[in-house]
Amino acid sequence: MTKLVPIGDHVVIKVEKAKETMKSGIVLPDSAKEKPQQGTVMAVGSGVMLDNGTKIPLEVKKGDKVFYSKYSGNEIKLDDEEYVVLSQHDILAIVK
Amino acid sequence: MTKLVPIGDHVVIKVEKAKETMKSGIVLPDSAKEKPQQGTVMAVGSGVMLDNGTKIPLEVKKGDKVFYSKYSGNEIKLDDEEYVVLSQHDILAIVK
Amino acid sequence: MTKLVPIGDHVVIKVEKAKETMKSGIVLPDSAKEKPQQGTVMAVGSGVMLDNGTKIPLEVKKGDKVFYSKYSGNEIKLDDEEYVVLSQHDILAIVK
Amino acid sequence: MTKLVPIGDHVVIKVEKAKETMKSGIVLPDSAKEKPQQGTVMAVGSGVMLDNGTKIPLEVKKGDKVFYSKYSGNEIKLDDEEYVVLSQHDILAIVK
Amino acid sequence: MTKLVPIGDHVVIKVEKAKETMKSGIVLPDSAKEKPQQGTVMAVGSGVMLDNGTKIPLEVKKGDKVFYSKYSGNEIKLDDEEYVVLSQHDILAIVK
Amino acid sequence: MTKLVPIGDHVVIKVEKAKETMKSGIVLPDSAKEKPQQGTVMAVGSGVMLDNGTKIPLEVKKGDKVFYSKYSGNEIKLDDEEYVVLSQHDILAIVK
Amino acid sequence: MTKLVPIGDHVVIKVEKAKETMKSGIVLPDSAKEKPQQGTVMAVGSGVMLDNGTKIPLEVKKGDKVFYSKYSGNEIKLDDEEYVVLSQHDILAIVK
Repeated sequence: MTKLVPIGDHVVIKVEKAKETMKSGIVLPDSAKEKPQQGTVMAVGSGVMLDNGTKIPLEVKKGDKVFYSKYSGNEIKLDDEEYVVLSQHDILAIVK
Repeated sequence: MTKLVPIGDHVVIKVEKAKETMKSGIVLPDSAKEKPQQGTVMAVGSGVMLDNGTKIPLEVKKGDKVFYSKYSGNEIKLDDEEYVVLSQHDILAIVK
Repeated sequence: MTKLVPIGDHVVIKVEKAKETMKSGIVLPDSAKEKPQQGTVMAVGSGVMLDNGTKIPLEVKKGDKVFYSKYSGNEIKLDDEEYVVLSQHDILAIVK
Repeated sequence: MTKLVPIGDHVVIKVEKAKETMKSGIVLPDSAKEKPQQGTVMAVGSGVMLDNGTKIPLEVKKGDKVFYSKYSGNEIKLDDEEYVVLSQHDILAIVK
Repeated sequence: MTKLVPIGDHVVIKVEKAKETMKSGIVLPDSAKEKPQQGTVMAVGSGVMLDNGTKIPLEVKKGDKVFYSKYSGNEIKLDDEEYVVLSQHDILAIVK
Repeated sequence: MTKLVPIGDHVVIKVEKAKETMKSGIVLPDSAKEKPQQGTVMAVGSGVMLDNGTKIPLEVKKGDKVFYSKYSGNEIKLDDEEYVVLSQHDILAIVK
Repeated sequence: MTKLVPIGDHVVIKVEKAKETMKSGIVLPDSAKEKPQQGTVMAVGSGVMLDNGTKIPLEVKKGDKVFYSKYSGNEIKLDDEEYVVLSQHDILAIVK
């Protein structure tokens, strides 16, 4: 099966279908502002590079359920699944 | 119960309903400029990352009542509650 | 009494009513450009954070009379008083 | 045969013809947002330069199949082949 | 007499009336571009803060005659005098 | 003969006439996007200055044939020849 | 005679009248893009300040003939001469 491997501080997220209600009953707010998106982390990059070149591992892990801001990142379709690749700082929060 | 865990210098704030008057009688100014919002800190991120990778804890704590600028952050609805996720530098002040 | 506690390099200023003339007779210029505002510092943040995480105390102190640029910061109304929260670098000068 | 040698953190990618379906059957999404492009890495630059002048090798290697955002980089035609030269941070993911 | 004390790398300049011709006969050019302004330095801030927190004194001194770009800084009127508060890097040159 | 000496990370390139086909038969793509330009490096600046003031020599050398993005740099005409002065990071690739 | 003393990485250039042809017969190109300007360096600032506060002397010297981009810097007229004050990185090249 084909795999997407992100680079640096990027993360690959499998996008959750818009109207799916998660077990915890998350209904996206209807406010004028764009609804944040939800999905599951499929792969994380090598980390955040510091000025001296060392890498700090990302805070999110494979399998985390996350919210991320709607217009961040780039969408990719692979084997009929929709993914988005974005930088860790576009992730709003991990749902635990 | 589902929990939102923010990342890095982000903070999760439970939004206070617009017209609720707090014990101290805070009436939001009617000036042309956008009224700042109020709410309570529910969770704080791991801290501000310095150039050398170490993390400095955030100044706000869980339970702090805060003012934050209206158009900062992203709104999330969870179990019928409205939250906003924003960076610490979008918080104007702690109400003590 | 409720208190506003600013964060980092922010400052809370009690706004002086527009047309009040201070003892020294400061009349705001009528130039096309926006007139700077005046007020009194009520509280200062923990300081400016350097790259290595240490904090440098702010130059302005509680009680200083200051000029600040009109469109900087956010207004907050508290117990019928008008405050503005802004960053120290938006303060033009201290009036001594 | 003429060769394109990129500089610093740049990468030369041979562009895959738009409608070619890769072995793994990647069909580009039809979403309103711009479809990411695909191609093969032909050459990589000398690396990312740190503040102290040392160079960190790039994560992508010659021969990697990659996705990159549509409007990044510059197109060059050489010996009837289409290439794009872009910075490593415009590469979304490596396809493995 | 009231004094304006600038902060950090800011400078307080007493504005010279527009058409005053200085002893050296400086006539401001009529080019389409905005004419630079002239004035005298009345007070200088504590200096430019480096990454490590130390302060480097400003190059301009009290009493220097300077040119500065027209649209930089903020105007303040104090005891019938017009001042402008701007950052040192908005000063074009010292007239000696 | 007059010579142009660039400064810092700048490079002087002698512009190749638009329709000249190089030995390797490079025909510039007709895509809507601006065609990259070609030329030969005539002189290189003293290098890239690091935070600590030391200089890192540029990667391109005098005599290199290069592609550079169309709208970068400034054109200069000297002794009937057309040159462009641009920063090294505007150079797409060296043609070898 | 009045002198203009620039600050930091700034340079004072005496502007060469537009159509003057220099000994080397430099005729400014008629391209749509703005023609670069020419002039002679009259004074240089104290240097480029590094993060640690030390100053690196500028590469251009008093007396250098230079090209600079048309819309950079500020014009000043002094004793019937036209000068421009700009930062060293707006200088395209030294003519030798």
